Amino acid sequence: MAEASGGGGLVDTVGAFVPGPRVERRGAVAGPLTGLSFAVKDLYDVAGTPTTYGNPDWARTHPVAAATAPAVQALLQAGAFLRGKTKTVELAYGLTGENVWHGTPVNPAVPDRFPGGSSCGSAAAVSARLVDFAMGSDTGGSVRIPASYCGVFGVRPSWGSVSLAGACGLGPSFDTAGWFAARAGVLAQVGEVLLPEDNPPGAVLGPLLKVEAAWINALPSTVLALAGPLQVLEGLLGRALGVDLAPEGLGLLYESFRCAQAEEAWATLGSWVSATAPSFGPGVRERFDAARTMSAEQAAAGRAFRRVFQARMKALLAGGAVLVYPTSPAPAPKLTSSQADQNAVRELTMGVTAISGLAGLCEVSIPAGRDGGAPVGLSLVAAPGRDRALLALAVRLAETLGLPC
Amino acid sequence: MAEASGGGGLVDTVGAFVPGPRVERRGAVAGPLTGLSFAVKDLYDVAGTPTTYGNPDWARTHPVAAATAPAVQALLQAGAFLRGKTKTVELAYGLTGENVWHGTPVNPAVPDRFPGGSSCGSAAAVSARLVDFAMGSDTGGSVRIPASYCGVFGVRPSWGSVSLAGACGLGPSFDTAGWFAARAGVLAQVGEVLLPEDNPPGAVLGPLLKVEAAWINALPSTVLALAGPLQVLEGLLGRALGVDLAPEGLGLLYESFRCAQAEEAWATLGSWVSATAPSFGPGVRERFDAARTMSAEQAAAGRAFRRVFQARMKALLAGGAVLVYPTSPAPAPKLTSSQADQNAVRELTMGVTAISGLAGLCEVSIPAGRDGGAPVGLSLVAAPGRDRALLALAVRLAETLGLPC
Repeated sequence: MAEASGGGGLVDTVGAFVPGPRVERRGAVAGPLTGLSFAVKDLYDVAGTPTTYGNPDWARTHPVAAATAPAVQALLQAGAFLRGKTKTVELAYGLTGENVWHGTPVNPAVPDRFPGGSSCGSAAAVSARLVDFAMGSDTGGSVRIPASYCGVFGVRPSWGSVSLAGACGLGPSFDTAGWFAARAGVLAQVGEVLLPEDNPPGAVLGPLLKVEAAWINALPSTVLALAGPLQVLEGLLGRALGVDLAPEGLGLLYESFRCAQAEEAWATLGSWVSATAPSFGPGVRERFDAARTMSAEQAAAGRAFRRVFQARMKALLAGGAVLVYPTSPAPAPKLTSSQADQNAVRELTMGVTAISGLAGLCEVSIPAGRDGGAPVGLSLVAAPGRDRALLALAVRLAETLGLPC
Repeated sequence: MAEASGGGGLVDTVGAFVPGPRVERRGAVAGPLTGLSFAVKDLYDVAGTPTTYGNPDWARTHPVAAATAPAVQALLQAGAFLRGKTKTVELAYGLTGENVWHGTPVNPAVPDRFPGGSSCGSAAAVSARLVDFAMGSDTGGSVRIPASYCGVFGVRPSWGSVSLAGACGLGPSFDTAGWFAARAGVLAQVGEVLLPEDNPPGAVLGPLLKVEAAWINALPSTVLALAGPLQVLEGLLGRALGVDLAPEGLGLLYESFRCAQAEEAWATLGSWVSATAPSFGPGVRERFDAARTMSAEQAAAGRAFRRVFQARMKALLAGGAVLVYPTSPAPAPKLTSSQADQNAVRELTMGVTAISGLAGLCEVSIPAGRDGGAPVGLSLVAAPGRDRALLALAVRLAETLGLPC
């Protein structure tokens, strides 16, 4: 692997970067992010380089990028130094972070466990302190889950708030840009560059709403690990009120998300999959097969429930309420776990990540706890458009918890 | 051209449909749109058929669609009968509606003038009453302008409100689905199927704000044609107040839109354009060349002004205010007009269409007037998320004006 030309010989200790020559770009000399280094998930275009989307057949059948994605361009213009492109799950369609073609990045916090995905390389690079921040993307948890697993801060911004031009899509009405940082302040700084100006940092947030089903859904040990941080958060926002977002159960959230998103995934990528017949690693092929064979009725039911849930969340969160729950119901699965166990974890996890996914909410994961030595994140979630206020709250909470700011 | 198999021998009298065998799909037997026929712009995928995006090289280098775009699927599931795919300007990058490969559709209202684009075939098909409604898409005016030129109702919904999965992109943070109808009630009916449920039709709209610069920008004869309809609208919403949205001038709106959108167009399509070197008709190549060679500073300036303008519109429209202005500053240009004249019209037009384009607003164009025998539209514009209320207002206005409902 090539050394960083401007950054002093970066060594990729955890296999976070896509194999091959390092892609580097200097940022502007003076800007709000000057002095910070970053990496981008290899589904964002950087002019003159291939975008692999984690899959060799994708790389082979797509031209080298002619342009740099505007969001990446904005970070460079703000002064950040791009150190390279990080690994992604193939076509961003998976949550463990496994990539059989490029190698699964090591989870720097717990090397015997998965890093989480699909933005696995970005989370690993930040967790290993190879960069100050890293861009990922989040359709159904692809920033939040690796943030929780690798013990770093991560944000999935409100749907539509950051342009995804020049980025590969998975489910356009679900896809969001997102990013990771080891320090809460850096997470917020990046937001100041990328988020719309109509997201005032001073907007009032509260009350705090504890999503009961998501806490019940989590391992008792994970709940215990996050009980202290939740109390600290209550010290900032007042005592949490219990809420039931989905009397239908988290299972229906998962199912609705899975179907509505799979319909979009097949609409977006199915033509390429059908025409190319690409080689896929375990799990990815199965998910595309499921998307291809899903019935029109299942997709319509997913879309219909999504609309109901969006309206429900809009009413609940309009005044500034913040949801709180464990980002993932458990720490990262072990690398040795079976495919069946991974699928079970996936289903439990996506019942919770579907909340923001279905309703386009903004969510910040705080590396607030350790469960048996492995990191677990605490999620703060707010209505679309309150990203800056939510990031400011994350900084306050991190300060109070003594986390890196 | 193939005859419609289920619709009784539709003859494409105005060249609205893409040449080749007609693509037809039956809708559900019973649904809110049963009994209505529609067409879709040939940038939406319909499973098993090619998506040309208006350009033979695009069709040649892309696989046949494996899936139907979810928005089109939702219309079929609501009972509408799909009659076929309509012509688009190549890669949706133009406003006159010209397509040298497929033939420019005739403007049924004024056959010696352009139909407007890029959703030219959809507007022409509705104007000629070949279908009850038609899907287009609108990045910088591609529904609103052909609606105005062809004398039909058209809506550009709030950015992000209708999924564009399975639809070709031009500038993802600007692109919207949109549709045309000859009757206001049908325009609203389609919205009930496609728009989120959190867009209540009963939301209060007002006050009415007259965007002075957009009226000054229009031909005096166009202003005169719309003066009566504006008075009728004032009867519904109260006397219009004059506002100045952009003390910087509409020229800056145009320039900011052009640069920010061109950056996204190149990020989205530049890799394909560079790798394929496609043949383009007049104007399209020039626009991609401009996008390719645009400086990073121009793009950043466009993005920066966009953020300022978004914040300004958010504050202005938050309470329910409705902007009103001529959709296009003049009727459709004549087919014999020079490229230079077309460019001048384009610039004047996009200074106005950029208002909704930059800020993601919803806009309905009402076929309210005739200027020298050619149609001109009156636009009603509201904050993102107020689409259903705006469509309800359009129906009320159409009823009061005696337009088809």
